[in-house]
Amino acid sequence: MITIHHLGVSQSDRIVWLMEELGLPYALEWYDRDPATGLAPPEYLALHPAATAPVITDGQTVLTESAVIVEYICHRYADGRLTVRPDQPNYPDYLYWMHFNNNVLGLFFARLALGAAESAHAERIGGFIARRHDRYYGHLDTRLGESEYLAGPELTCADIMVTFNLTSLGRFGGPGIEGLPNVAAYLERIRKRPAYAKAMSIAGPTATRPS
Amino acid sequence: MITIHHLGVSQSDRIVWLMEELGLPYALEWYDRDPATGLAPPEYLALHPAATAPVITDGQTVLTESAVIVEYICHRYADGRLTVRPDQPNYPDYLYWMHFNNNVLGLFFARLALGAAESAHAERIGGFIARRHDRYYGHLDTRLGESEYLAGPELTCADIMVTFNLTSLGRFGGPGIEGLPNVAAYLERIRKRPAYAKAMSIAGPTATRPS
Repeated sequence: MITIHHLGVSQSDRIVWLMEELGLPYALEWYDRDPATGLAPPEYLALHPAATAPVITDGQTVLTESAVIVEYICHRYADGRLTVRPDQPNYPDYLYWMHFNNNVLGLFFARLALGAAESAHAERIGGFIARRHDRYYGHLDTRLGESEYLAGPELTCADIMVTFNLTSLGRFGGPGIEGLPNVAAYLERIRKRPAYAKAMSIAGPTATRPS
Repeated sequence: MITIHHLGVSQSDRIVWLMEELGLPYALEWYDRDPATGLAPPEYLALHPAATAPVITDGQTVLTESAVIVEYICHRYADGRLTVRPDQPNYPDYLYWMHFNNNVLGLFFARLALGAAESAHAERIGGFIARRHDRYYGHLDTRLGESEYLAGPELTCADIMVTFNLTSLGRFGGPGIEGLPNVAAYLERIRKRPAYAKAMSIAGPTATRPS
């Protein structure tokens, strides 16, 4: 059985959502961030050399990175459900939206690093980050105006990858989704999915360690 | 036929390398960065809404993102060569190293954004970035001490994804590979591959627009 090592308020809620969509059994191990620093505890860092959430264990296999874990689980345990095969016409869309969040997260971390200092450097780089972010999110909103889900009419892992950014980056000082009507409507559709609602109640950003 | 829209000194040299490894035909369209700003020219930005290098066109299909493009080409035009199937034992390794460079690039952009300002913020965030970077590259060096290539004994797309970072980030003020003996030996192996040498002569960081 797969164990999801869940760090509170982190990208690992994606994996809980995936397992609920697939109806697969899993164990959830809960780890709390250090209340003072917000960092993962030493037990979490010991799981994998890269030590970033999410981490899963499957027997002797230890995996990190959301995109790695969702592909692994769907192909090894669900006959490729929620993925798109290379011979399907929407395969390029699937691949693209699977990778979309890397760029958004990269900009988000760059913005965090830049900080609040007022200087010519901060103004120049901050403007560059904001313009690139607007371009990415504009593209996302356009896509969701023409398609129910990111890779086509059905939910895929690409949606599981992107939704976290849209719902959770704002909690860390990141961008929200103001002015993106198609993205807002998409999130409403996502929130109505029973598997999503159940996953968020178990491991979403406002969930707490089970007593 | 696939057209690679090559931006000088960019991640698009990966795609030229891939095509040379696979022995597939391709057209190369060359775009120069603005000499003053280093940014891509307007014709390049017009290719795709995300406007990041690399971009390929394949008939009406326009694709960006290295990891998307390499998977697309290998599965659509090369029967999955240079990829690893879900039923192969090294599939988790393949997935992990395919995604590795996103984290490294994210840290690199965060470091660029942070800039050179001396402040308590810069010191704290700079230390965080450096520690995380060391952890990633330490993991990489360990892996390359136990395996000829990243996913196992044969070159795969995971190597094509990671090599650019190792050879080229230093040109943009990013980290080098000092103190990583297994990484250095790996790059020597890569550089001896005829397809790599040919690709770098055509589109590597020191190549120039064909006259």
